[in-house]
Amino acid sequence: MNDSSYFIAVDWGTSRLRAFLCRIREDGSLKLVTRSAGLGVSKSPLSFEDTLMQSIAPWEFEYGKLPILMSGQIGSSIGWKETPYLPCPISPQKLAKSCINFTCNGYEISIVPGLSCQLENDNYDCMRGEELQILGWLQLDPANRVGRHLLCLPGTHTKWVLVEDGKIKLFKTALTGELFDLIVNHSVLIQSKGPEFNLAAFDQEAFDKGAAFTLKSEQGSFMHGLFSVRSKQLFGQLSPEEATSYLSGLLIGSDIRAAVNATEWCLGSVDLVSIIGAPHLSRSFARVLASQNIKSDICKVTATTLLGFNSLYQSFLGLSEKSA
Amino acid sequence: MNDSSYFIAVDWGTSRLRAFLCRIREDGSLKLVTRSAGLGVSKSPLSFEDTLMQSIAPWEFEYGKLPILMSGQIGSSIGWKETPYLPCPISPQKLAKSCINFTCNGYEISIVPGLSCQLENDNYDCMRGEELQILGWLQLDPANRVGRHLLCLPGTHTKWVLVEDGKIKLFKTALTGELFDLIVNHSVLIQSKGPEFNLAAFDQEAFDKGAAFTLKSEQGSFMHGLFSVRSKQLFGQLSPEEATSYLSGLLIGSDIRAAVNATEWCLGSVDLVSIIGAPHLSRSFARVLASQNIKSDICKVTATTLLGFNSLYQSFLGLSEKSA
Repeated sequence: MNDSSYFIAVDWGTSRLRAFLCRIREDGSLKLVTRSAGLGVSKSPLSFEDTLMQSIAPWEFEYGKLPILMSGQIGSSIGWKETPYLPCPISPQKLAKSCINFTCNGYEISIVPGLSCQLENDNYDCMRGEELQILGWLQLDPANRVGRHLLCLPGTHTKWVLVEDGKIKLFKTALTGELFDLIVNHSVLIQSKGPEFNLAAFDQEAFDKGAAFTLKSEQGSFMHGLFSVRSKQLFGQLSPEEATSYLSGLLIGSDIRAAVNATEWCLGSVDLVSIIGAPHLSRSFARVLASQNIKSDICKVTATTLLGFNSLYQSFLGLSEKSA
Repeated sequence: MNDSSYFIAVDWGTSRLRAFLCRIREDGSLKLVTRSAGLGVSKSPLSFEDTLMQSIAPWEFEYGKLPILMSGQIGSSIGWKETPYLPCPISPQKLAKSCINFTCNGYEISIVPGLSCQLENDNYDCMRGEELQILGWLQLDPANRVGRHLLCLPGTHTKWVLVEDGKIKLFKTALTGELFDLIVNHSVLIQSKGPEFNLAAFDQEAFDKGAAFTLKSEQGSFMHGLFSVRSKQLFGQLSPEEATSYLSGLLIGSDIRAAVNATEWCLGSVDLVSIIGAPHLSRSFARVLASQNIKSDICKVTATTLLGFNSLYQSFLGLSEKSA
């Protein structure tokens, strides 16, 4: 066993920490050995050090103190160490050079920087964590590193990312997932609150109605559309059980409508949209895109993320060889 | 003093109860004698009866058991007695006939029904409480009872109301105020949370930036716009203190953009929009309307509401005279 054939990848966002113990095979490919989970940057009552150690401690006895690569909000102003936002256009291969490296409890830790871009309207956008998924997606197929591609990364915040010849050119964030959580948990629109959105209760027909409603409605009438979640229940067009799926459709429909109308890219000139996200969300986005005659391709989110970490780790090894 | 020259008007919504002790002058006009406040339908830990009695008890010794007229969510499925939604188009003069009347603790109580309308897209809309303000607005000026008028009632939910020849033809609800509260209190967009939105900290320039942002942005990109509340803070274009006012501008801008594009009315053919709401909200709506070259007129909300209650009370007296 080579010392450098194992490392730990940590995707540490606002709500969740996901740690992956990875092994690099002889052929350079990555094998996920095991994984663990912990609390996110804004959720853990412990220090960042203790939260991390709790998640990876069981691995130390067998594997020793492996190098740790981390991405996500852990590198933000509310995180452990603040890393910069690197401006786009950028090749995500360049992330390795701008990591913040430090030692903690005998572990060599690197935190990946975020990315920023300047859009029309004098507006900026930013991401932390998704850059690793994009880096991974670039490794999926050599064709991904040539030409123009649009990626959609649904989650708490949807990221729409324009990639050109292997570089991240620009991206746009939509509040879709966060708005869904806010409305489900705190609004008068949804009366019967479950502890979490229940996937088993997902109603495809209600979802489709919601998406169609936003896609067809007048310009700018999103907040009128939201009220239909309540009015359709009051007038018997929607059961309380269907309301949550309908809301999901409204929001994803609105997100996709914006992507269709975005002037930063022309969706008509893009062959297909690559979706990287949780399976149920990815399916919902693909379905609404299809309703607008836009093809899409769903990538496996964990595998793609780990491909990104592997690529980053290989860059690290290259950097340390150069400096040796 | 005539027995019927005093009554109590109660505007009882989800969050607040407002009770008004009113006197009808010789000339038929209304004088507000005094007022009190209590908890809303979804807030009070007491029974509806006890909550109401607590608010009006101090008046009983001097005035006896006056007739009580109530409007708002108190007549909804989560209220005291459920009143119907009367379908539009309707003259709000007809509300009196469909009130639910009952006796409680020796008081004669009437709860006003709500209104509903069917819109394009097979969609319904509904209101409870605002119908009294519209009824009051119709009394403000005989000219209001002739021709075509657009009313804007900002609040937790904005109501845009089309009135034709004294009848409420249709209306549309936008979630503007509720979304503002949700995002200010529960989202990652606003980091520094005060206990309540602080009017003294309102920043006009940030508000204007927010409104301009939504009014100018691409079709459907509302949820991208919301993320700019955060990105503009991260990139130094907005201080945390300005963020709340900017958000208010984004939301009101979006609400007005929808009204400008609504196909149910043609804003170009409307002389002016009459705004009935809290003063600071009314000013914000008027300002954004003006930026779109749309004239508006701000009505005093309590005076207008009480004019509505007075008109309703006069109808009641008329009805009881007829039946006598």
